[in-house]
Amino acid sequence: MNHRKPAFLVLLLVGAAARCGADEGMWTLDNLPKAQLERRYHFTPTRDWLERARLASVRFNDGGSGAFVSPDGLVLTNHHVALGQLSKVSTEKNDYVKNGFFARTPDEELKCPDLELNVLESMQDVTRRVLSAVKPRAPLRVQNEQRKAAMARVEKECSRKTGLRCDVIELYEGGEYWLYRYKKYTDVRLVMAPEQQAAFYGRDPDNFTYPRFDLDFAFFRVYEKGRPVRPKQYFRWSPRGAADGELVFVTGNPGFTERQKTVSQLEFDRDTRLPLHLQRLKSLRAALEAYSAGGAEEARRAQGLLFMLRNSVKALDGELRGLQDPKLIALKRERQKPLRAKAPEAFDKIAQAQKLLESRQKQREFRSLFGSKLAMFAMTIVLESEETAKPNDRRFEEFRDSNLDSLNFRLLSPAPVYPDLEQAALTDILGQAQNSLGADDPWVRAALQGRAPADEARELVAATKLADPAVRKALVQGGLKAVDASDDPLILWARRLDPAYRELRKWHEDNIQSVEALEGNRIAKARFALYGKSEYPDATFTLRLSFGKVAGYDELTTRVPYKTTFYGLFDRGASFDDAGPYQIPARVDAARSRLDLSVPLDFVATNDIVGGNSGSPVFNRDAELVGLIFDGNIQSLVWDYVYSAQQGRAVAVHSSAILQALRKIYGMDALADELEAKR
Amino acid sequence: MNHRKPAFLVLLLVGAAARCGADEGMWTLDNLPKAQLERRYHFTPTRDWLERARLASVRFNDGGSGAFVSPDGLVLTNHHVALGQLSKVSTEKNDYVKNGFFARTPDEELKCPDLELNVLESMQDVTRRVLSAVKPRAPLRVQNEQRKAAMARVEKECSRKTGLRCDVIELYEGGEYWLYRYKKYTDVRLVMAPEQQAAFYGRDPDNFTYPRFDLDFAFFRVYEKGRPVRPKQYFRWSPRGAADGELVFVTGNPGFTERQKTVSQLEFDRDTRLPLHLQRLKSLRAALEAYSAGGAEEARRAQGLLFMLRNSVKALDGELRGLQDPKLIALKRERQKPLRAKAPEAFDKIAQAQKLLESRQKQREFRSLFGSKLAMFAMTIVLESEETAKPNDRRFEEFRDSNLDSLNFRLLSPAPVYPDLEQAALTDILGQAQNSLGADDPWVRAALQGRAPADEARELVAATKLADPAVRKALVQGGLKAVDASDDPLILWARRLDPAYRELRKWHEDNIQSVEALEGNRIAKARFALYGKSEYPDATFTLRLSFGKVAGYDELTTRVPYKTTFYGLFDRGASFDDAGPYQIPARVDAARSRLDLSVPLDFVATNDIVGGNSGSPVFNRDAELVGLIFDGNIQSLVWDYVYSAQQGRAVAVHSSAILQALRKIYGMDALADELEAKR
Repeated sequence: MNHRKPAFLVLLLVGAAARCGADEGMWTLDNLPKAQLERRYHFTPTRDWLERARLASVRFNDGGSGAFVSPDGLVLTNHHVALGQLSKVSTEKNDYVKNGFFARTPDEELKCPDLELNVLESMQDVTRRVLSAVKPRAPLRVQNEQRKAAMARVEKECSRKTGLRCDVIELYEGGEYWLYRYKKYTDVRLVMAPEQQAAFYGRDPDNFTYPRFDLDFAFFRVYEKGRPVRPKQYFRWSPRGAADGELVFVTGNPGFTERQKTVSQLEFDRDTRLPLHLQRLKSLRAALEAYSAGGAEEARRAQGLLFMLRNSVKALDGELRGLQDPKLIALKRERQKPLRAKAPEAFDKIAQAQKLLESRQKQREFRSLFGSKLAMFAMTIVLESEETAKPNDRRFEEFRDSNLDSLNFRLLSPAPVYPDLEQAALTDILGQAQNSLGADDPWVRAALQGRAPADEARELVAATKLADPAVRKALVQGGLKAVDASDDPLILWARRLDPAYRELRKWHEDNIQSVEALEGNRIAKARFALYGKSEYPDATFTLRLSFGKVAGYDELTTRVPYKTTFYGLFDRGASFDDAGPYQIPARVDAARSRLDLSVPLDFVATNDIVGGNSGSPVFNRDAELVGLIFDGNIQSLVWDYVYSAQQGRAVAVHSSAILQALRKIYGMDALADELEAKR
Repeated sequence: MNHRKPAFLVLLLVGAAARCGADEGMWTLDNLPKAQLERRYHFTPTRDWLERARLASVRFNDGGSGAFVSPDGLVLTNHHVALGQLSKVSTEKNDYVKNGFFARTPDEELKCPDLELNVLESMQDVTRRVLSAVKPRAPLRVQNEQRKAAMARVEKECSRKTGLRCDVIELYEGGEYWLYRYKKYTDVRLVMAPEQQAAFYGRDPDNFTYPRFDLDFAFFRVYEKGRPVRPKQYFRWSPRGAADGELVFVTGNPGFTERQKTVSQLEFDRDTRLPLHLQRLKSLRAALEAYSAGGAEEARRAQGLLFMLRNSVKALDGELRGLQDPKLIALKRERQKPLRAKAPEAFDKIAQAQKLLESRQKQREFRSLFGSKLAMFAMTIVLESEETAKPNDRRFEEFRDSNLDSLNFRLLSPAPVYPDLEQAALTDILGQAQNSLGADDPWVRAALQGRAPADEARELVAATKLADPAVRKALVQGGLKAVDASDDPLILWARRLDPAYRELRKWHEDNIQSVEALEGNRIAKARFALYGKSEYPDATFTLRLSFGKVAGYDELTTRVPYKTTFYGLFDRGASFDDAGPYQIPARVDAARSRLDLSVPLDFVATNDIVGGNSGSPVFNRDAELVGLIFDGNIQSLVWDYVYSAQQGRAVAVHSSAILQALRKIYGMDALADELEAKR
């Protein structure tokens, strides 16, 4: 787990694109399959085209993707990627999630509390530098420390030299290390978002399905020094949008895939990791649903977190079903045979590590504080105070100098914290830990000190001052001394948890991570020896390009069309008698007679995507924007493990739908003009 | 196989309704599950309600169902049930299938060449009379003859007494025999049918799927003595049509089901009967598609037969897939255990008969003349001349006096015969027989006399005069003598086939039919002893009533709505760029702005139906018409063997869609007024 990948990427949508023949691949931009593109699509990307694809693509550091779409710093992404920020700027009186947000002048654009965007400025292979620091005679545990220390040194040197955000990325399961240098933006302002019922039409039932009828888009504008930024590149708006059979590209930041994982790792996922993870998420979901049922304001407060949980549960359920298909493991076993023949010991050691991990995965899962902001704040403050007292290359990676800015930007966010929501979440977290790990688990003993989860959560949340960002800031700035002196009960609580946390993390780094990274490197070498660079690395929430074509598919003896239209939206509403998840939002309903109902709404393509690609631009040979990734169908969820375009599809909002919605539903003509360069 | 069931019932749509809990059942009208209806739906049918359900229901003797819907003899059914007659009255210049048919005055109503409708006037249990004629000491073969002779006597006596059509029906696999007395109508006139592209929108791909967007309806008017008949009962049109969750009823004539068949019979179907049948149909389909490709007129001539073949292949493929699911056979085995314990010998004998049947099923399949009208005419004329020379109770059942009228009505139809189409079909029939049965098969030897199938078919079709109904009439009226004297090459050909035909038919009656009917009776007795009359008999193309509720279902993690709307029709058109099977017909397109797009188009319900139910009325507690069955979804195809309402659904046209189409698309206001009793 890399801290720089937001924990809930997987949540933010998913979809895995398709091999209609061979559209598979989430390619790094240094290694596009040019021969394949030329052969299948008679297309060769130019240098300029590639530069636009890279520099117009934006990473949403809280877990999604996006793109510059105007010379004035306008960024397009999904509504559900914007959801976190929309929630944070909402209040009891102004629920922008429910009602939408519409800045009709620059003045009305609203600054996001903790949104960081990244643009990949340059990339450099540093494999040799990282691996030459590793002494093969040392114990694996020590080799792992050497490896990480080398990564820290590369990052620190780069950020000092360039002022950019510098991340060393591990690719091909330890086969390569790359230095990615990002331009970082933190003054990002909300411009426009539809009401959630239009963006997320059909809600949980329709999520990860197709046909879809969703206006899942939102606009931000990036500022620097108080003025809209002039991006080096942006995508121009296509006049006609995606067409059937057309070659299209997607850039973005797919979060995690497990395609190059060994069979033993997949079996561990199937039998241990995913079932435990789902158990925890479902319990938390139930707790928050109960909290939400308390009233409209409670529902509003929980909506961001609940969306993530529901989205995640549905995605992971689909992934697990995929893994449970014996054909999948059989396929993987077959495909890995040549690699295994070349590096049998590496496969065996990784398998032993999985066996070992089984004994402690429950602790890894149920000691997680995800769900409670306050608890995570406290834990991060305590760890940061201790880690930053160490030399840079000995720290946990998230506390390296090169990463501290981004970390503290989130930690000190002015976004509101709701004590009642915190209490509900923390009660569930503690209750689950107690039930799953037992009262004698060291972490549970430290967290509860023999008290009931509900009592402990209530009193901690009531007494802590950490909801105030100024209090957090003082602690962060005061370092070890301030933290040691603090009598905030949540800080004291986190300090009690600290030894158990560190023990488990170190155990994992020494016994599991070290094996997976360094034996993984041996498998990667075998892979390169056999296949060269004809394969792409598993997803790592870094910039990738995928290609594919706009295409429907067969299902249950009939055809699923490549696109839907506004007609279909009104059909789905009427066919459910305009009820529940299928209610047509009032603004859309009011615009009905003005709309051209035959305009495309959503469409599907075979592009290879997964969670983290939400908000990715879809563009054509001319680098014109033709759509916006927002989902993958249910058949694509297995793409985490293996890609197939038989039915799996990436799902996108059609560029024409966005224009029609802006002009005819939301009266946002100036914004539409900016996209169409009519200003 | 009962000759009175049109051979291609299964073709004409299918769908098997649903046990949402327990909506299962195709109930005979003497034995409705009243307690169940009361418990589940708080509904008890009155005597009047039941009488309306029976007397307003109409059987289309060429393979479908329908209903009286006005006091002036107007009958509603499916377009695809009307398709045969529409084809027969079409010419090269007037293709009513393609263009629709619209009689705007009574004068314009068009008489159908060979359509017989039946209304069930009364029913009587004759089990004792039939079975008392069977002498248990006689060989099974003889018992079977006694059984059939008794049926013939009951029928003849009834038709002489009442002048009605009298059929003795075998129910519960030989457990009961009932005398059904039908009012018979043969002056039936076409009133209105939409263009096929509107009725069968989405064509083969969407057939047996849902959501559907089809206007699959047609109207006929029944005449007697030159005037519209005043039916005893008819269904009034519901002002609002089917609503979500509503209790609805379906009457009609489900063709064949195999739910009470023993496991050995199902295994025979799975391993032998269905695969061979599909092989033959697919070959014939390919031959006719090749013929159709010859030009527009060829396509027109073949369209009726090709529709049936495609429909049948898709349905049977679905049924076979269902049977191949090991869970289905396991379920049947489990359910049959108590019956088997009570009648083990009967099960064993039926299993032995299946084993025996394996040796000759290929002959039964590939000696069929289905596909060539001329060949079937010739064979029927030859058999009729011989059979009618025998005493009534010794004849093949289709030639009993009580059945001859209906048989000859079809045999002497003035509908056109197309020699080129006949030649294409007969070539395939003969070619398949030769390939599958070998040149030494007695039937093949007689049919080909060593010649090539294409030569034989070409010369037979070119030389025969049987396309002329007057020639056929002379032969039928002239009896044995005329047939013996005929030098029509096709009559000579059929006479050569006659011995092989008779040998196989007798072999089957003596060795298979006798076992299935008489051992089946033993199993039925066990069934009645265990369950009384709480079960319904398998379908026999006779009047049944099913109940259920209007309900969507879950699919691929989302919801399928209970209805579709006109919005959805235009969505499906636009989403496929108005191409191929999804082209919006010009008349519908022209009406777009006049239509209320939110009006329901099709809907689904859990009612238990199968092929033969096409055209069945759907009506509510008040016996008002709310819809028109026209399909079952793909998940319902397994209903031939076992009903489940988890996803399986009957698919119907909504009554409101018919009214809107009549008034706003087709300008048939007078017809709509007649339905709404506004005249």
